[in-house]
Amino acid sequence: MRIRCAILAIGSELLEGSVTDTNSGFIGGALALIGIKPAFVRLVPDDRETLAAAIKEAAAAYPLVITTGGLGPTFDDITAECLAAAAGRRLSLNKAAFAHMKERLESLGVPLRESHTRQAMLPEGCDVFENDAGTAMGFGLPVGSSYVISMPGVPYEMTIMFRERVLPFIKSRYPIGNVIHRQLRFGLIPESEVDKAVLEAGIPDGVECIINAGKSEIAVKLRSERESELNSLAEKLAAAFPENFMGFDVSGPAEALFLLLLKKGASAASAESCTGGLIGKLLTDIPGVSSVYPGGLISYSNEAKIKLLGVKPETIEKHGAVSSQTAAEMAEGVIKVFGSEYGISVTGIAGPGGGSAEKPVGTVYTGVSGGGRTVVRRFLFRGGRESVRQRSANAALFTAFSFIRGEN
Amino acid sequence: MRIRCAILAIGSELLEGSVTDTNSGFIGGALALIGIKPAFVRLVPDDRETLAAAIKEAAAAYPLVITTGGLGPTFDDITAECLAAAAGRRLSLNKAAFAHMKERLESLGVPLRESHTRQAMLPEGCDVFENDAGTAMGFGLPVGSSYVISMPGVPYEMTIMFRERVLPFIKSRYPIGNVIHRQLRFGLIPESEVDKAVLEAGIPDGVECIINAGKSEIAVKLRSERESELNSLAEKLAAAFPENFMGFDVSGPAEALFLLLLKKGASAASAESCTGGLIGKLLTDIPGVSSVYPGGLISYSNEAKIKLLGVKPETIEKHGAVSSQTAAEMAEGVIKVFGSEYGISVTGIAGPGGGSAEKPVGTVYTGVSGGGRTVVRRFLFRGGRESVRQRSANAALFTAFSFIRGEN
Repeated sequence: MRIRCAILAIGSELLEGSVTDTNSGFIGGALALIGIKPAFVRLVPDDRETLAAAIKEAAAAYPLVITTGGLGPTFDDITAECLAAAAGRRLSLNKAAFAHMKERLESLGVPLRESHTRQAMLPEGCDVFENDAGTAMGFGLPVGSSYVISMPGVPYEMTIMFRERVLPFIKSRYPIGNVIHRQLRFGLIPESEVDKAVLEAGIPDGVECIINAGKSEIAVKLRSERESELNSLAEKLAAAFPENFMGFDVSGPAEALFLLLLKKGASAASAESCTGGLIGKLLTDIPGVSSVYPGGLISYSNEAKIKLLGVKPETIEKHGAVSSQTAAEMAEGVIKVFGSEYGISVTGIAGPGGGSAEKPVGTVYTGVSGGGRTVVRRFLFRGGRESVRQRSANAALFTAFSFIRGEN
Repeated sequence: MRIRCAILAIGSELLEGSVTDTNSGFIGGALALIGIKPAFVRLVPDDRETLAAAIKEAAAAYPLVITTGGLGPTFDDITAECLAAAAGRRLSLNKAAFAHMKERLESLGVPLRESHTRQAMLPEGCDVFENDAGTAMGFGLPVGSSYVISMPGVPYEMTIMFRERVLPFIKSRYPIGNVIHRQLRFGLIPESEVDKAVLEAGIPDGVECIINAGKSEIAVKLRSERESELNSLAEKLAAAFPENFMGFDVSGPAEALFLLLLKKGASAASAESCTGGLIGKLLTDIPGVSSVYPGGLISYSNEAKIKLLGVKPETIEKHGAVSSQTAAEMAEGVIKVFGSEYGISVTGIAGPGGGSAEKPVGTVYTGVSGGGRTVVRRFLFRGGRESVRQRSANAALFTAFSFIRGEN
């Protein structure tokens, strides 16, 4: 990758973790896709001196600098003035920005306030990036031999501005090669095995390979300007673990399952105990999932498992609510409740309490049922409550995907 | 706050957004609580030269530097050697670290591998922070006039190590004042109103006040060494918005509702459409919630609303699935399904599709029912699908909290 870029995420709340910065990762990931390397990322507090110095330092070291945050109407929104100072320019009312803002507010029926005017005070002679989802304009200008672009910090506004306005601008300005990407996703496989397969396959010159271990899943990102070398490695890796391979460029097991159900014209319902709704949440993150997902039952109590899912009281009495048998009956029961082709279930001990010698915290059973068959898997997940729940949900979704794909 | 601290989160995957850095926010927040200011946060790629320089620069500018990540057993885990280089020390096998690791592995029945030995190669003469949840030890040592502490990047391991080992060490090493904190949380109120109330109440000298706007909720953090001034401001703010105030030091509307239900000895079940399980997920994030939350129904399809929750087909036909009437019948219906005292419901249009002139994307109805009463509220949320869903879930939880608190 030829061009290196710095990203500054501005806001004191980010440094104290009151808000988690997801902007710089989003921007870094999107730039990496077009061959620009996010080489430096810093979180900067809302402090004039610190921010002005941070912009100057970044501009001195990197040909492209992107900032997010600090463009709002309040007194601690100081990005425009700090950038103007770093560039040796004055702030003035930007007519184009003001006109766009006025038009936008009128169309929404919002009266123009002084604070809006303040948001149109931009460094003189800057390029303006319109905000299609809010009132704070983005802007960019040269600082020394670098170019600095400032965007708002609200992720929804920033992502739209970046995709629609900033990225085309960057592409037109910088010599960007024809970088190709493929992402492979695998379910329920140790990172060390994928690592080994990559080393055995060999990474060709000019191909970049990044392995990211998630919760019960692993993504392998390949990036190169050499299409045939990249594709050859991608095919080798996909073939190395046919059971675990979910597909190219899918975002996770929820999407893999969604696409498979769409193709099959079938539906699946969920029955969740320890994940408490997370499987439903992950599936309904996907717009359009309603065509394959009618819904689910969160059966957190034993009574709900028995009364609503038809789990037999004897099953729970004899084997426990966290057991292979209960998971199977939950998956079978939820099919009847929703009239779906498939049922997915999870029951487990997410912790911190509730574990025993025989079934320690992290013990989880996932079930999938359909076409008269039911399959249950037992897992022992490590990590805290949140981690166990994430792993459980992904494991259940992947197990269902795998079950349905394996049908003839 | 007297001492300023730098935090370096190490890992190329963080800069490209494959993994979101939550470690630095966690550490920054925890340090701020004891009066140490997180003044500088940087994400650093797994690159020897860059990392060694980043450690040196941070140590030259801040008396305390904390790093996370890069302590694993693979070739790109280079934090120990870069820190040793910055401190002008050699790496050598740390006997204490090795013994602890060996003992830990034996107790888990895991054979000792060469990669484990590599994880015990630490800078000579360093302090060791044991890892109670993994094999990578933490360590710390002086670099110039600064002190640098390195912890693993896995959040679960890091948070335990930080709380149990690193924080007591820092407290014993630095002169830390008796800083007091209180956090107030409000539901469904514009940030500008809270802002205004804070200005009207006046922030006393020596009290720090930070306002964080979340999704349908706002947190106000107060911090001071002056207890009576802090408490006086806290009481004023709580009294300014009695309807919206959720409590002191609660993590959000899910916890506020949980604590209220516990106190009442009552239970609530959820019926979710557009949030698809998120309300259940937020409630079951809380260990012990099973005593007040038997479960919920994710009724994503109209059929599920009718068949499982008892929503009348005429209601959906006449008013639509996204309507005040449907929300009310969902909340009432889920009480019957789960036999709970209260029912919480949400139905809305999360987008991106499905909006109309009358009911645009972001139109959401929340319902709460109990004791023979049902209350529905209509909202119009802005932002993308994820944001609308988060706001909807929090709004429903807060509305339920408010309804139940208001009962006599």
